[in-house]
Amino acid sequence: MRARVLIRPKEGILDPQGQAVERALPALGFDGVANVHVGRMVELDVDDVSRVGEMCERLLANPLIEEYEILVVER
Amino acid sequence: MRARVLIRPKEGILDPQGQAVERALPALGFDGVANVHVGRMVELDVDDVSRVGEMCERLLANPLIEEYEILVVER
Repeated sequence: MRARVLIRPKEGILDPQGQAVERALPALGFDGVANVHVGRMVELDVDDVSRVGEMCERLLANPLIEEYEILVVER
Repeated sequence: MRARVLIRPKEGILDPQGQAVERALPALGFDGVANVHVGRMVELDVDDVSRVGEMCERLLANPLIEEYEILVVER
């Protein structure tokens, strides 16, 4: 089973990459952009998708400052 | 409209972060994991989602070594 984990800064945690992108886009002529957030994505084949949350807690994310979302990807 | 951009190394391009995660997981007791890839995610509010591809080409991704996927997120 293919799992996709989306990891992003928690609400209220600084997101300097997102801020940098949000400032750079208008300078390149892209207007009408807001609320930009940059996070990570991990995709992996797993035998047991029920363990992916634990993988996030222990390795993939930093639960203090990041939230994660686990999706199962159709193939 | 909320857009989500998933950016990952192109097929055949080295993915050292993915390799590192793939090696670390069994050491933590997580078996049955394969094909791990680590990429980036950018989420943004846009007035015109048809321009997000151009944003990827010019700023968000490196089209030489990365592929990107644009999703529209329901809210």
